[in-house]
Amino acid sequence: MNQQYPSQLLERAVGEFARLPGIGRKTALRLVLHLLRQDSETALQLADAIRTLRIEVKRCRVCHNISDAELCPICGNPRRDSSTVCVVENVQDVMAIENTQQYQGLYHVLGGVISPMDGIGPSDIEIDSLVERVSQGLIGEVILALSPTMEGDATNFYINRKLKPLGVSVSVIARGIAVGNELEYTDEVTLGRSILNRTPFE
Amino acid sequence: MNQQYPSQLLERAVGEFARLPGIGRKTALRLVLHLLRQDSETALQLADAIRTLRIEVKRCRVCHNISDAELCPICGNPRRDSSTVCVVENVQDVMAIENTQQYQGLYHVLGGVISPMDGIGPSDIEIDSLVERVSQGLIGEVILALSPTMEGDATNFYINRKLKPLGVSVSVIARGIAVGNELEYTDEVTLGRSILNRTPFE
Repeated sequence: MNQQYPSQLLERAVGEFARLPGIGRKTALRLVLHLLRQDSETALQLADAIRTLRIEVKRCRVCHNISDAELCPICGNPRRDSSTVCVVENVQDVMAIENTQQYQGLYHVLGGVISPMDGIGPSDIEIDSLVERVSQGLIGEVILALSPTMEGDATNFYINRKLKPLGVSVSVIARGIAVGNELEYTDEVTLGRSILNRTPFE
Repeated sequence: MNQQYPSQLLERAVGEFARLPGIGRKTALRLVLHLLRQDSETALQLADAIRTLRIEVKRCRVCHNISDAELCPICGNPRRDSSTVCVVENVQDVMAIENTQQYQGLYHVLGGVISPMDGIGPSDIEIDSLVERVSQGLIGEVILALSPTMEGDATNFYINRKLKPLGVSVSVIARGIAVGNELEYTDEVTLGRSILNRTPFE
């Protein structure tokens, strides 16, 4: 049944919230009514944060990560190892790897993976700029850190073929049993790979 | 661990989204990055809808429902039965009852229920304005439609005591087994009430 809203302003706000992923009209209504119950600063600050972000945020001109400036804080940090570049799908992946505190190199954010089903080809993501970056000769290793899906594997394959002629070393993050997981419940592909790619016991 | 954001604009937007109920920082980040992937109209329209709503929305001066004008569409509708007033806790309740299409009277939105635990007393919700409205003598029946909780019951009790001297008829929505529910799984209070408040079989 079509919901009757007592106010068109309310209906419009609910409609806009409901366009966000994972938010239905019922949740949207709950969020909007919450904003109406709070003092008006709360709602106005949210509106301003969204507006300012969308207008002012940039992409780093080197790694294409989200950034407030031309150069993101990672690319602009002289203490990072600029000879190593980790290729990831999106901004969340950069944040996930940064959280591990195990990586000191730079990144290259593709902005997607090759997915013919979704009409995304190599030219739709930042592969050319990666090849250009590597061809300048200052990068020694490229680490492929895409999700181990069909699309991720296809993208790895394509990038590796483009980078090999440039003489750069290309590696891929280890795939195996996740720390804390039970061996007997691990899927057979992962378990098989974890045996093939075994590492010396230290 | 403290999440490292590549952009302060991003961090601010995530922080504002995460202040909404039921939205954690991870969901907030997903929503904000979604807005960055869409064309900028999507984000700017959301921002504008929130801002406009918060600044321009009003409360109906009669029933206190959310409204674009001084008088809400329900109170302003001459075809509604203005001699019957249904007392509800909030805007969602008005919308839920309107959706049943079983009610032709007007509403009175309390904006909460009496709840000493949360420091909400009778003067914090729209009870005085209800008494004032009824005392004008044009209302024949007040239907109490609050949730059957301790707070709802206490509020019903308080309102009834205030309205009785005015000679208005006060009723409460039926409590009983929900349509479609199994009798054996209904809690005993509800089941007991449903027997006490049995209605003639038609």
